[in-house]
Amino acid sequence: MTTQDELKQQAAAQAAEMVQPGSILGVGTGSTVAFFIDALAARNQKTPLNLAAIVTTSSRSQRQLEDNGFHVSELAEIDQADLTIDGADRVDPQLDGIKGGGGALTLEKNVAINSKHNVWIVDESKVVDRLGGFPLPVEVLPVSCEQLLKKFTRDGLAPQFRLNEDGSRYVTHYGNYILDLTVSPLPIPAGLASYLDGTVGVVEHGLFLNMTDEVLIAKKDGTIAHWVRK
Amino acid sequence: MTTQDELKQQAAAQAAEMVQPGSILGVGTGSTVAFFIDALAARNQKTPLNLAAIVTTSSRSQRQLEDNGFHVSELAEIDQADLTIDGADRVDPQLDGIKGGGGALTLEKNVAINSKHNVWIVDESKVVDRLGGFPLPVEVLPVSCEQLLKKFTRDGLAPQFRLNEDGSRYVTHYGNYILDLTVSPLPIPAGLASYLDGTVGVVEHGLFLNMTDEVLIAKKDGTIAHWVRK
Repeated sequence: MTTQDELKQQAAAQAAEMVQPGSILGVGTGSTVAFFIDALAARNQKTPLNLAAIVTTSSRSQRQLEDNGFHVSELAEIDQADLTIDGADRVDPQLDGIKGGGGALTLEKNVAINSKHNVWIVDESKVVDRLGGFPLPVEVLPVSCEQLLKKFTRDGLAPQFRLNEDGSRYVTHYGNYILDLTVSPLPIPAGLASYLDGTVGVVEHGLFLNMTDEVLIAKKDGTIAHWVRK
Repeated sequence: MTTQDELKQQAAAQAAEMVQPGSILGVGTGSTVAFFIDALAARNQKTPLNLAAIVTTSSRSQRQLEDNGFHVSELAEIDQADLTIDGADRVDPQLDGIKGGGGALTLEKNVAINSKHNVWIVDESKVVDRLGGFPLPVEVLPVSCEQLLKKFTRDGLAPQFRLNEDGSRYVTHYGNYILDLTVSPLPIPAGLASYLDGTVGVVEHGLFLNMTDEVLIAKKDGTIAHWVRK
């Protein structure tokens, strides 16, 4: 195991301690979240947490949870999660972030918005002063995707269709395409979010603003930084 | 034919005269639009319009257009329509409206937004002083529809799942559900639209604001009113 992985593991263990027995838990996806599931399973092994329900945003996390004996529910079966642990592709000091590198932004945002408390665990490479340095994914309906490509290009957002390895267009779980916007840094994230929210044909976008309450950061210097929304 | 149908037919004939030869035409759906297609076909029969392309928002209109010898394209195949003729479920004196009674609001809005000029043809029963008197359809992702039902209920919007005749949930062309909001009159349409645009899990809603340029109204007194956006 590399040092970076050890650090992620420490952050993940810290996140696992945040889970309250008997609560409803949301679980995201990513390499650090995979360590979180390990830590959660170890904790549950020692003293059963008797979680009321677990929902997750990826089939990979679902498999890992089920392999560890957890039952996974659908979001529709619960009211709200008490706590959701997820990763992020970029996060800034305001605890705003970009997500969706894995293409599951819509499900991730639906879980986040229906969680009372959201915690991200990331390594230091994801931390930026201003959001950018990573394509901003926008999930769009196929029906008007060609028009949206032109609109975003006109508006200076340099969109590109996300492609599969074979060059075909990546299709989301909901049957839509992803246009990755390649502006960096992003101009006024809240303004861009409002523009995208109001754009017909946009299903969801990867700007997660005012959604996350705490961030655990595995730093290169071997420490774990803990940011809390003010 | 009833007098109301004769009136709709007059409005439809007037709309058919607006179509420029060689242009790209968008065609909506509804009983008045059906008369429009008849009128368009009659006009094309006399003097071929040589339309560059036609797109439509319903399979019913597509069938009627094809039965009349028109070729129907997908929105993805064109850039913009020059003119779109559609109906509306409600329209107010600001030329704002509610659409989606037929469940195709998302496609209708995508066609409208990608049309240089939009004209609605309606009968007088659709005209209201303030938008309301008709359920406002909101297309929502199934993943968080239960949470949205609760949220809209909490926010006083009295949502109800649209149902099929057999009591099962109506599923849109895009695999989503429709929540019909039953507030009337609608509180500040632009504010409600902004609230819905920013709500995670909402794909699209039936408020068509600042989108329509002209409305032709078949009135009970036998005249056709012609409203133009100022």
